[in-house]
Amino acid sequence: IPPDSSRPAKVQELCVYEINERDRGSPAYLRLSQKSVNSLGDLVPFSNKIYSGDLEKRLGVTAGLCVLIQNVPEKKGDRYEAIYSFYFGDYGHVSVQGAYLTYEDTYLAVTGGSGIFEGVYGQVKLQPIVFPIKLFYTFYLKGISDLPAEILGKKPVEPSPAIEPSPAAKATEPQATIPNFTN
Amino acid sequence: IPPDSSRPAKVQELCVYEINERDRGSPAYLRLSQKSVNSLGDLVPFSNKIYSGDLEKRLGVTAGLCVLIQNVPEKKGDRYEAIYSFYFGDYGHVSVQGAYLTYEDTYLAVTGGSGIFEGVYGQVKLQPIVFPIKLFYTFYLKGISDLPAEILGKKPVEPSPAIEPSPAAKATEPQATIPNFTN
Amino acid sequence: IPPDSSRPAKVQELCVYEINERDRGSPAYLRLSQKSVNSLGDLVPFSNKIYSGDLEKRLGVTAGLCVLIQNVPEKKGDRYEAIYSFYFGDYGHVSVQGAYLTYEDTYLAVTGGSGIFEGVYGQVKLQPIVFPIKLFYTFYLKGISDLPAEILGKKPVEPSPAIEPSPAAKATEPQATIPNFTN
Repeated sequence: IPPDSSRPAKVQELCVYEINERDRGSPAYLRLSQKSVNSLGDLVPFSNKIYSGDLEKRLGVTAGLCVLIQNVPEKKGDRYEAIYSFYFGDYGHVSVQGAYLTYEDTYLAVTGGSGIFEGVYGQVKLQPIVFPIKLFYTFYLKGISDLPAEILGKKPVEPSPAIEPSPAAKATEPQATIPNFTN
Repeated sequence: IPPDSSRPAKVQELCVYEINERDRGSPAYLRLSQKSVNSLGDLVPFSNKIYSGDLEKRLGVTAGLCVLIQNVPEKKGDRYEAIYSFYFGDYGHVSVQGAYLTYEDTYLAVTGGSGIFEGVYGQVKLQPIVFPIKLFYTFYLKGISDLPAEILGKKPVEPSPAIEPSPAAKATEPQATIPNFTN
Repeated sequence: IPPDSSRPAKVQELCVYEINERDRGSPAYLRLSQKSVNSLGDLVPFSNKIYSGDLEKRLGVTAGLCVLIQNVPEKKGDRYEAIYSFYFGDYGHVSVQGAYLTYEDTYLAVTGGSGIFEGVYGQVKLQPIVFPIKLFYTFYLKGISDLPAEILGKKPVEPSPAIEPSPAAKATEPQATIPNFTN
């Protein structure tokens, strides 16, 4: 049996910004715990826009569910279990699961993908920047072929509260999107 | 270190029909958005029956959750994030995650499995046939041993609105089910 | 191309107890079906404590969501689709998905992980002991390096209704926890 040349173990880094532009009705905070403080029982479906790490291309959207696990008053934040996907237009998607802490970095599991991400595995670092509207992700991806340049982008912009997508990407001008970007 | 002979990279195609026979109280459309149009915030737990691609065997059920992401009026349909599993009786299960668009084909990630599907990875094509009661899936599975003939079935029936399971499969007659099919 | 030495196919067994000590407001049974019997539509976010199989170390917590699929009156129990993670402090986490039957053992898929569990795959046996407060898990993990001794623990305590964590582990004394155990 030959080694599995279709599933390279090489790590590919992919940086992505997730930005809530307040135009998708997201997040939907469902206070099903019926408590005044965020509590187990609350559910938070969400969908935000994603941009390349250099902020020059609109890539697509995130989509999924956060399950409120615990309010953490000493951190003035919350622990969520997050189960969601990143959609990259015609290129496919990546699904992830793990902890989202509103107050510090976490690593989530990459559980699978489709299209050019078929067979993907690895993990992703989630860095909250401005709660809850700007997040930065660094994917460490294995099991897939070399990613296309337009998804990777140029050198990522350093995460900071001031970051904004380029006006062309925000306006989804054709040269600032990927093919059939998810909207 | 020898190559991992336990995780073949060969692709196995598996075709499955998912059919809602309206006898499981499924789906449960939870209109938690409290909006009149399907909106982010709505959640849809569901569980339907699954049959082999040749419609001759009842295999088991699906079980999971759809998260409404977006109503798409120009397609007269919806985008969901779907997180669910396919249960194949004593053979085990396959978990998947990705987009379910009610109006066109999508590919979901295969995120893992149990039993004969332990270690599975790959993707699955979802084809909606009759909303929301008939769907056709083509799994492209890697990482597992050869699937048993009774799950694969014979040549799949071409998807069409008229498809129906064989009467014996629908009646779960012993020769038309797999061992301890999930019910 | 060399074989992927970073992803060993060797199976590692890891035993873990999940215990609901009734101090986390868990589970939150959301009776969204609005039916008197547990029914599809009900959702159950939860988070419990986890201990090593020898009950000598507090490891962390579980966190996630159970989707009620079916009440099974002849078993006096329920079928859930369970989507959750096991958190092991600084060591990382493991995500799983599959069936949780309150009345018998099941196998769930290991869908991914982070930290020392990055790239993990395989399955996990779930054994309910005392509903809904004591469960025993045997993970069969592949794709990762040798697990540290303090997570593996010594010989697991045989599952029984009487099991209790050691007083030191329950009190999260430093010698009875792992580094920055998840709380």
